Amino acid sequence: MSLLTIGTVAFDALETPYGKTDKIIGGSCTYIALSAAFFLPQVNVVAVVGDDFPQEYMDSLISKGINLDGLQIKKGEKSFFWAGKYHNNMNSRDTLVTDLNVLADFKPMIPNSYQDCEFLMLGNLTPQVQIEAIQGLKNRPKLVVMDTMNFWMDIALDDLKAVLKRVDVLTINDEEARQLSGEYSLVKAARVIRAMGPQTLIIKKGEHGALLFGSEGQTFFCPALPLEDVFDPTGAGDTFAGGFIGYLASTGRTDFEAMKTGIVYGSALASYCVEQFGTTKLASITPEDVDARLAQFRLLMTEKA
Amino acid sequence: MSLLTIGTVAFDALETPYGKTDKIIGGSCTYIALSAAFFLPQVNVVAVVGDDFPQEYMDSLISKGINLDGLQIKKGEKSFFWAGKYHNNMNSRDTLVTDLNVLADFKPMIPNSYQDCEFLMLGNLTPQVQIEAIQGLKNRPKLVVMDTMNFWMDIALDDLKAVLKRVDVLTINDEEARQLSGEYSLVKAARVIRAMGPQTLIIKKGEHGALLFGSEGQTFFCPALPLEDVFDPTGAGDTFAGGFIGYLASTGRTDFEAMKTGIVYGSALASYCVEQFGTTKLASITPEDVDARLAQFRLLMTEKA
Repeated sequence: MSLLTIGTVAFDALETPYGKTDKIIGGSCTYIALSAAFFLPQVNVVAVVGDDFPQEYMDSLISKGINLDGLQIKKGEKSFFWAGKYHNNMNSRDTLVTDLNVLADFKPMIPNSYQDCEFLMLGNLTPQVQIEAIQGLKNRPKLVVMDTMNFWMDIALDDLKAVLKRVDVLTINDEEARQLSGEYSLVKAARVIRAMGPQTLIIKKGEHGALLFGSEGQTFFCPALPLEDVFDPTGAGDTFAGGFIGYLASTGRTDFEAMKTGIVYGSALASYCVEQFGTTKLASITPEDVDARLAQFRLLMTEKA
Repeated sequence: MSLLTIGTVAFDALETPYGKTDKIIGGSCTYIALSAAFFLPQVNVVAVVGDDFPQEYMDSLISKGINLDGLQIKKGEKSFFWAGKYHNNMNSRDTLVTDLNVLADFKPMIPNSYQDCEFLMLGNLTPQVQIEAIQGLKNRPKLVVMDTMNFWMDIALDDLKAVLKRVDVLTINDEEARQLSGEYSLVKAARVIRAMGPQTLIIKKGEHGALLFGSEGQTFFCPALPLEDVFDPTGAGDTFAGGFIGYLASTGRTDFEAMKTGIVYGSALASYCVEQFGTTKLASITPEDVDARLAQFRLLMTEKA
């Protein structure tokens, strides 16, 4: 089934203990689409860039099966730019630059050819834009997954809560779950957040794995793969979400059992993502690599063969 | 097969955000033995207390199948006492009091009736005493598991390394693994630590689960059960170790597959331990409770039913 994702397509400049990059391709939508494209012949993107965004970057996405019909290119404007520096343990980072540029007045335009998409992934963006994306679809998709971050909890909580009422699955990290719910226990946090709207909650814990909370008390945990080195964590959460919804869209399923496998796929893709800067690794691996890593995850998780 | 454990039997005074206790029964050996006793008709203890240690505490251990023939009672001396206060997130704590008392000159005495024990659990203690325990056994046990902590890395690293050369399995937490190895990546840390002696390394990550590293690159991850509340984390690591070695001793197995199940049992018991103060919960649950929680763990971990 077809997948639509909305989010940012942007420039990132990254610095980690392993080195630094100039402006490279980044953005939530980029990672989501690259990851989901492992499961689908086409991933439909809604996003905005300036005319400084290189054609070669767009060509590289198109070559992966990513449909850019919904990518607005704003003449005379600049693309969103984020620069960040990770600390030694990779668990914290400083934002050095956030230039919203084209994002400042982004109005999502959904091409007619996207209207029958049955899976919708709302990448991290202003909650107001996420709502407009939902409203821009004539039919409610079969599954709406939303990612967000603490920044929107700080400055746009009411808007965020309005989106939450309209989505099926929310993905956030553990600190964000605690902030949003006011509960330290993740079990209690999940109960509070699920009462805000999403039937299903995924709490991402980075190097500590991910928790899936479904309706009827169902809970599933997927570990992160212990890695030799985490080179650059940028985009890992988006890659995870892209693999999750990409797998579901490829099967057409939205049940808890399918979501469990979706989370393992998402984790497998995220584990590749962090092994090189930006999208480098994600853009270079094959479906066979993804299957090989899935097998590694299953070995790691399986008590009884 | 029979199990011998050495460690502390002591008084603890605990303070958590949920309340505080007067002096209650504690100590690494107490938790290990209570946990292992779920799997074995008898758990043999080597430890030392003062004559201030109440008979009723000893009777309660004996009633659980814990053999105290190896418990020295020092006349006119006081038992080891530790007081600690946990911070709000339970992940850090302050030590308020450490009165070594009888521990200061503890010489482990191994009763003849323990000499044929095939499983040995060295609870957290001075590395020198851990070595003496190994030396006190005429035959090398089939499996020696050792727990330790950062304190000994700080003040007795050479002794600690000497014990490491003689054990099969080491259990430490993630920060301790990083300190001992000098490596941040747990994969690299495991390689360095396994080269120090233990074939198998278990890295305990508290609320984030536990990692098992075997020879030949085998790796297994067991999550922690997401809990409504963590009431008191004291003894969770010892309870985990006791469940792990208790299960192995009950099967007589020391292979990686058995260790995986041992870790799930250990995690199940630890998840009970933290639900009430001290040993309260551990002393009140039944083998049926343990099996019920094991089933919860398997549900949490199992991608495909």
